[in-house]
Amino acid sequence: MDARAYIEAHGDEFLTSLKEWLAIPSISADPERHDDVRRSARWLADHLTETGFPTVEVWETPGLPAVFAEWRAADPAAPTVLVYGHHDVQPVDPLEEWETEPFVPTERGTSLYARGSSDDKGQVLFHALGVRAALAASGADAPPVTVKLLVEGEEESGSVHFAELMKANRERLACDVAVISDTTMWAPDTPSMCVGMRGVTDVEINLFGPGRDLHSGSFGGAVPNPLKIMSDLLSGLHDADDRVAIPGFYDGVVEASAQERELIARLPFDEEEWLATAASTAARGEKGYSTLERVWLRPTAEINGMWGGHTGAGGKTIVPRSAHAKISFRLVPGQEPLEIQDRVREYVEANTPDGITAELEFGGPGVRACASDLSSTALKAARSAMGRAFGKEVLFTREGGSGPEADIADILEAPLVFVAVGLNEDRIHAPNEKVEMPLLLKGAESAAYLWEELGAAKDA
Amino acid sequence: MDARAYIEAHGDEFLTSLKEWLAIPSISADPERHDDVRRSARWLADHLTETGFPTVEVWETPGLPAVFAEWRAADPAAPTVLVYGHHDVQPVDPLEEWETEPFVPTERGTSLYARGSSDDKGQVLFHALGVRAALAASGADAPPVTVKLLVEGEEESGSVHFAELMKANRERLACDVAVISDTTMWAPDTPSMCVGMRGVTDVEINLFGPGRDLHSGSFGGAVPNPLKIMSDLLSGLHDADDRVAIPGFYDGVVEASAQERELIARLPFDEEEWLATAASTAARGEKGYSTLERVWLRPTAEINGMWGGHTGAGGKTIVPRSAHAKISFRLVPGQEPLEIQDRVREYVEANTPDGITAELEFGGPGVRACASDLSSTALKAARSAMGRAFGKEVLFTREGGSGPEADIADILEAPLVFVAVGLNEDRIHAPNEKVEMPLLLKGAESAAYLWEELGAAKDA
Repeated sequence: MDARAYIEAHGDEFLTSLKEWLAIPSISADPERHDDVRRSARWLADHLTETGFPTVEVWETPGLPAVFAEWRAADPAAPTVLVYGHHDVQPVDPLEEWETEPFVPTERGTSLYARGSSDDKGQVLFHALGVRAALAASGADAPPVTVKLLVEGEEESGSVHFAELMKANRERLACDVAVISDTTMWAPDTPSMCVGMRGVTDVEINLFGPGRDLHSGSFGGAVPNPLKIMSDLLSGLHDADDRVAIPGFYDGVVEASAQERELIARLPFDEEEWLATAASTAARGEKGYSTLERVWLRPTAEINGMWGGHTGAGGKTIVPRSAHAKISFRLVPGQEPLEIQDRVREYVEANTPDGITAELEFGGPGVRACASDLSSTALKAARSAMGRAFGKEVLFTREGGSGPEADIADILEAPLVFVAVGLNEDRIHAPNEKVEMPLLLKGAESAAYLWEELGAAKDA
Repeated sequence: MDARAYIEAHGDEFLTSLKEWLAIPSISADPERHDDVRRSARWLADHLTETGFPTVEVWETPGLPAVFAEWRAADPAAPTVLVYGHHDVQPVDPLEEWETEPFVPTERGTSLYARGSSDDKGQVLFHALGVRAALAASGADAPPVTVKLLVEGEEESGSVHFAELMKANRERLACDVAVISDTTMWAPDTPSMCVGMRGVTDVEINLFGPGRDLHSGSFGGAVPNPLKIMSDLLSGLHDADDRVAIPGFYDGVVEASAQERELIARLPFDEEEWLATAASTAARGEKGYSTLERVWLRPTAEINGMWGGHTGAGGKTIVPRSAHAKISFRLVPGQEPLEIQDRVREYVEANTPDGITAELEFGGPGVRACASDLSSTALKAARSAMGRAFGKEVLFTREGGSGPEADIADILEAPLVFVAVGLNEDRIHAPNEKVEMPLLLKGAESAAYLWEELGAAKDA
């Protein structure tokens, strides 16, 4: 039986299992749901055992548990693949906006509605089906590559213990490639692979001026106003071409290849539709780049919030004592978050005049960007596998957002390949999250072909 | 008996009356105190009747009442002087910071502590003593000039009905000069006259971008960020010399005379001490002007508050949907508040890019600046009168703040002269307001001499 036939035959069974798992409200950010997160880990461990994984373990952390599973290839020379996903889910607020209960999985048309259906339980579980399909296709009792699964339980609350967990288990997690199934593809009829994610680092800038709010009649125009200095600082973040103007910000940036830009340009991107999604009436960004390039390939400085002085009703003629802003920087390959933090610190220091003191608070060490090696065997195999499953050429995308994936690449010293079938319209992190059931089956099929192609590649 | 001797003889009596008046909590901003404001008006009317004013009236308004009094000179050709002050007071919060009860007038050394002692009851009441002293000095039974008093009851809550009241009573308020007793002088040993006050107009700028907060990973760097645009707008308010950069802002500005700048420069100004008062570690302002010139003679743009996006704890990687700022502009003679509002509107429109909409909300029509005519007979007489009372040359100051005084000059078509003995250190509008009792007596003496000199001037 070939992989597709196996998956078609076992699709209902797969969906029944998935609904069972989705009924567990594994919200890692809610302490009252931590027992459910643990229950979710045990459910997955049991399911992987049933699937046939010879090794299945629940790995405890100081927080919530991850699940590890391993199924070795018969051939010890076969490559090892590590699949990353997560079994915890986002909170469900505002609950009243859900059309059906978030933890009562409900089919409507081709969609399955439930919190976690797309992010990320559906995309984790298709690997269990995929590995069985690969076995059915080969007739063997072990997969053509060694498959390891690492499914964490704290992704939606910052992956706070995940790096430590990987470091502590570096040997057991050793792999030739890490397959990430926690992103999206372009559209149901436009299969694509994410080939990179932006990193991020964020800072809160606090400027202090006069020791108290001053009457602007008596002092205005004669002492430095922290809000004015903050405006200068923030306005100076970008030049007239909307490039980030912090000296050294672009040092080391690895530009995307012509091939990648060409594959991105071929995506059926509708700027008007994108603007509607963005609830915006105009696009704006770094000169010389398209909208998709701006959100995927280019680093940014974004002001997320600011405040200071009188913000209530009516007027209050003061020189305020302080000004505050929160800024996040999206980063691309070649930028180190800690070095960017140094550049930000230098920029603020250089632009803080007499009479103003600046305090910077960085939100942790930040997250590095990551990108696939487009010329690697693994990437080519994954692109071919998805292409076979979907019967179409697979284009490239990136994600503008950031995740723990760069850590996986760094700690496990493995290249990353993203194989995912979620859609941007799946409303992850929002009410009425759903996943397309036919795409989950295509995901399983892609995985089956990927193990087959990678197994074959080592013989090549 | 000369004026000084009369005042010395009647000083205790004056202070007893003042304390009685100060015990009435006439807080116009507090509806629960409105009966007290009315009580305060009646108290003053009674006191002015006792003083000998032949005409004393409580003038009702749609809000709180003013008191009008008139004492005609014997000579119908004598000039008419209108004295302006107010009998309402500021709120007292935070009450716990008062060392003695705000409405239990308490002497400590030469100071009298009470809400309203300096602003403005003490400075209104010295005129009652002053007019009696002038009578004692001349031996006549009418003052050498016609003295009118207009003491409003809503100054601390925006003088909302005051312009209407003046317009409705323009004939009865007709005068040759308006004497304002609601400001300060430089120091107990440095008598000075305020010769101008800045005007003010304020605006709230609201910028709207995306229809909702957007995830900066997915949209950051590709849509206009309202906080970024607001930063550009606010940063662009000033040029590198800290001059206001709004086109047309300085049109029509009447520069201060060389004489005035020279008299200001002779004030014993201690920049270090001023910085301590300003709770600031550095002065900063328009290039080419001293600190005092910056707060008195120069128009400014001051950011009073701003807010937008995520202002809570931690990071939130969004492109915010809106940004908001409150700005006030201090104005000088020659600047019309409504014209400045037009310039601000043009500036914001010219700097609002595609994808952002701007809404401006001006806080009313604004207040014009006012200034005394330094060459006028009235100003010279007042300067001479204060010089005789204090035994020192009288220097010039201005007030950086704004009041209804420009309306008085405009509606009554009378030049303004400021005669006041409050001090900057009197903590008006703050806990522990006080007034220096010896200075109130000097104020009464100055007023007595002023009526005498103005009466003599018409004969000259």
